[in-house]
Amino acid sequence: MTREEKYMKAAIREAKKAWALGEVPIGCVIVYEDKIIGRGYNRRMVDHSALAHAEIAAIKKACKRMGDWRLEECELYVTLEPCPMCAGAIVQARIPKVYIGSMNPKAGCAGSVLNLLDEKRFNHQVETEEGLLGEECSMMLKEFFKELREKRKKKKEEKAGE
Amino acid sequence: MTREEKYMKAAIREAKKAWALGEVPIGCVIVYEDKIIGRGYNRRMVDHSALAHAEIAAIKKACKRMGDWRLEECELYVTLEPCPMCAGAIVQARIPKVYIGSMNPKAGCAGSVLNLLDEKRFNHQVETEEGLLGEECSMMLKEFFKELREKRKKKKEEKAGE
Repeated sequence: MTREEKYMKAAIREAKKAWALGEVPIGCVIVYEDKIIGRGYNRRMVDHSALAHAEIAAIKKACKRMGDWRLEECELYVTLEPCPMCAGAIVQARIPKVYIGSMNPKAGCAGSVLNLLDEKRFNHQVETEEGLLGEECSMMLKEFFKELREKRKKKKEEKAGE
Repeated sequence: MTREEKYMKAAIREAKKAWALGEVPIGCVIVYEDKIIGRGYNRRMVDHSALAHAEIAAIKKACKRMGDWRLEECELYVTLEPCPMCAGAIVQARIPKVYIGSMNPKAGCAGSVLNLLDEKRFNHQVETEEGLLGEECSMMLKEFFKELREKRKKKKEEKAGE
């Protein structure tokens, strides 16, 4: 396993914490000098917060740990392509490098819908690498949504049978 | 004064709290059923956090107050056009209407550099109104930066005189 795969594995472990709560499994870690300094996973429903995405949680912790709003020598690993908010937060934090598991054609802002990470008119651009453990990240989401559909179907059938 | 101007005035008061801390004066309030349910101002330097923008703080508080990640019946008032992160957060929170004081040609994502608030490929679009107390919001920033330049110049002169 490469060092990059090792960190994406750590992001996948974060995503699985979200899954255990019934949340869409998305996870993120931030690495500085080969140490994880911020972790996060999707907690939107349990926290009742639009801001509770994996990347936001990880950036918050990393900034606190570094005592700086700039994460200029850090790498971010995330299992799913960032949404506009999270891509914007990555730019705000001046993170130079982002590793992405699977892409998100519906809302991804690292190239799918838009590319906020490489927008020349902003004052910071981010290098990205797509598809790191992409198959594993993508399968995790597919499994989650399959399970969700089955649960909903079962619930509907139970209701109909009442 | 219209009700909208009254809320923008409240956002300007938030911005002045940032100014008092030496931060770029940007403020925000979120309104639900004619009550302010979230306030925030820029605290990026004092909080050492890339996330500590006015809108993020206000959205966090409003979600907490509403017990919901959706702010579907709220209005957001902000003194400066949102950056990509904050525009993305507004979309994530499903806020339907945003009032903007002054525009930000360098990084604004409600029409200046990009328009994330009215991107048809996202699952939510936001109605915006620009220039609400625009002159006052714009002058506040100009005054802040003028003061900052003078402080820096004075410091430089003091250093040269040592």
